Amino acid sequence: MTEKIRIAIAGYGNLGRGTEAAIAQAPDMQLVGIYTRRDPESVQPLDAGIPVFRLDDIAAGKNDIDVLILCGGSKNDLPQQGPELAAMFNTVDSYDTHARIPEYFDAVDAAARSGRNVSIISVGWDPGLFSINRVFGEAVLPQGDTYTFWGKGLSQGHSDAVRRIPGVRGAVQYTVPVPEAIEQVRSGVRPTLSTRQKHTRECFVVLEDGADAEQVSQAIVTMPDYFADYDTTVTFISEDTLRQDHAAMPHGGFVIRSGVSGAGDNQVVEYSLSLESNPGFTSSVLVAYARAAHRLKQAGETGARSVFDIAPGLLSPRSAAELRRDLL
Amino acid sequence: MTEKIRIAIAGYGNLGRGTEAAIAQAPDMQLVGIYTRRDPESVQPLDAGIPVFRLDDIAAGKNDIDVLILCGGSKNDLPQQGPELAAMFNTVDSYDTHARIPEYFDAVDAAARSGRNVSIISVGWDPGLFSINRVFGEAVLPQGDTYTFWGKGLSQGHSDAVRRIPGVRGAVQYTVPVPEAIEQVRSGVRPTLSTRQKHTRECFVVLEDGADAEQVSQAIVTMPDYFADYDTTVTFISEDTLRQDHAAMPHGGFVIRSGVSGAGDNQVVEYSLSLESNPGFTSSVLVAYARAAHRLKQAGETGARSVFDIAPGLLSPRSAAELRRDLL
Repeated sequence: MTEKIRIAIAGYGNLGRGTEAAIAQAPDMQLVGIYTRRDPESVQPLDAGIPVFRLDDIAAGKNDIDVLILCGGSKNDLPQQGPELAAMFNTVDSYDTHARIPEYFDAVDAAARSGRNVSIISVGWDPGLFSINRVFGEAVLPQGDTYTFWGKGLSQGHSDAVRRIPGVRGAVQYTVPVPEAIEQVRSGVRPTLSTRQKHTRECFVVLEDGADAEQVSQAIVTMPDYFADYDTTVTFISEDTLRQDHAAMPHGGFVIRSGVSGAGDNQVVEYSLSLESNPGFTSSVLVAYARAAHRLKQAGETGARSVFDIAPGLLSPRSAAELRRDLL
Repeated sequence: MTEKIRIAIAGYGNLGRGTEAAIAQAPDMQLVGIYTRRDPESVQPLDAGIPVFRLDDIAAGKNDIDVLILCGGSKNDLPQQGPELAAMFNTVDSYDTHARIPEYFDAVDAAARSGRNVSIISVGWDPGLFSINRVFGEAVLPQGDTYTFWGKGLSQGHSDAVRRIPGVRGAVQYTVPVPEAIEQVRSGVRPTLSTRQKHTRECFVVLEDGADAEQVSQAIVTMPDYFADYDTTVTFISEDTLRQDHAAMPHGGFVIRSGVSGAGDNQVVEYSLSLESNPGFTSSVLVAYARAAHRLKQAGETGARSVFDIAPGLLSPRSAAELRRDLL
């Protein structure tokens, strides 16, 4: 048995916990520590034997960590942590602010090169596995259209937006793909679909005492960017119902490439996910890419990478010869 | 505009024609020649301007070809052609005899290294894109099961087997996945499925004059390896019906990974293809991987590769920065 890959986690929310659990499923990895901005005493890992440290002290772990998995958020944590930590460690993160990926990549790349590390950014399912399927679809069927549908699933960003409305005590928002739109795309007709035709949005809201339901409802459905372009339903529920029926974080979606190959034949490729836990799946993807980061570093590579740069075989603990024999 | 990648085709059957058509869709490639074992005069390319040469004369093309796409069959052509041509050219092929892939890989690898070329073997959808999804599934969800279903689609090997039965003038065989089995797998229950539970087989047969239908039918449904383990239906049709209704080569299928992530949540990943033309799609995949072979060669690599070794971004004519900006 070769040495296990030593993994550490930076940030211990839903994604950090999922990552700890995913590492426990990997035969070739061990979790050597969790780094947090909170008081380490206040953090309870799933495995009580895992040491918890202050994120500020992470430089001391330099020689004990092969790959650091960044489990912070894209809005406030990663823009700073990504480059800072890439200068010290091989890293994997799930940076998902699509519009800012180019600048984030450049910042992480410069830091990783300076530290002679490998950093794989924007890992997960979207960005991540969905992105890969968009590239495959376009490369294999250059004459065609790519459609991405999300859901049915809980959207963190949209739930937060509803929670910020005055009079709202708690809320969750589900993004729901329109079944007729998916069927149309699957059929190969390549429709042009508006935002409204692709997804609907379902909000479940707990009101503050005395809040005006109609006013809150209007504030939601007319909110620009988030809801105005969608058919949105608002359902008011009790705090108990919110806790009992809406605590899970399911998600999923579809990437469909519909194209015409050279001789005029319709070809449809579909990739879909049905996830009981969004952070549970995202962290499983992060852990597989941590294996790839370790291998690239061992091969002498440095700098930032995206999932587009990673050969599929690098994700598996099995050798290339075994994969060819058993899975090709 | 940089120089176009110069592609040649060895073998001009359905796959060769599909490859010619797929190259015409690629903005960064040009087809410089078709090589055939037949009399070149007898071969009519889709584009009459494409020169056709004897395969025996291919060494003369050495300096004019960046990548040679091998469009011969896995049974009789590739075991010999694969290594022979890999010694002279960067190659891509669709070798699909799963059980013999390890020895084929080794033979092509030795030849490609000797010629300092790059050869990507077993490219297409299965082996190929389906294989990649099996690796992703297992790497991301190590606790789970992978299910591959084929069809509905025309199986060349099974059609040939029926045609060899005495009394059969013509035949096609469709492999059909059992809908209930797919639904069960999609639901996340991870059933154990027998061969019979996963697929049925439908044969459409034209009899020779005077042949005994019952005898032919029995010969089909009891044929070991091909049909005995399946529920098989045999329908007798006229030669006209065979020609009119069964000339297309549709295919497709599903790779489903059903697993449980670390905290116990069910996660289901599905990849599916719905193809009007099997050779049309396979050749589209071959052409995308020819681009990758060219790039690896330019980067100084040599030897055989499988799809597991190829980073997704190498398949696209677009730059890594463009892909990150637009598709990540």
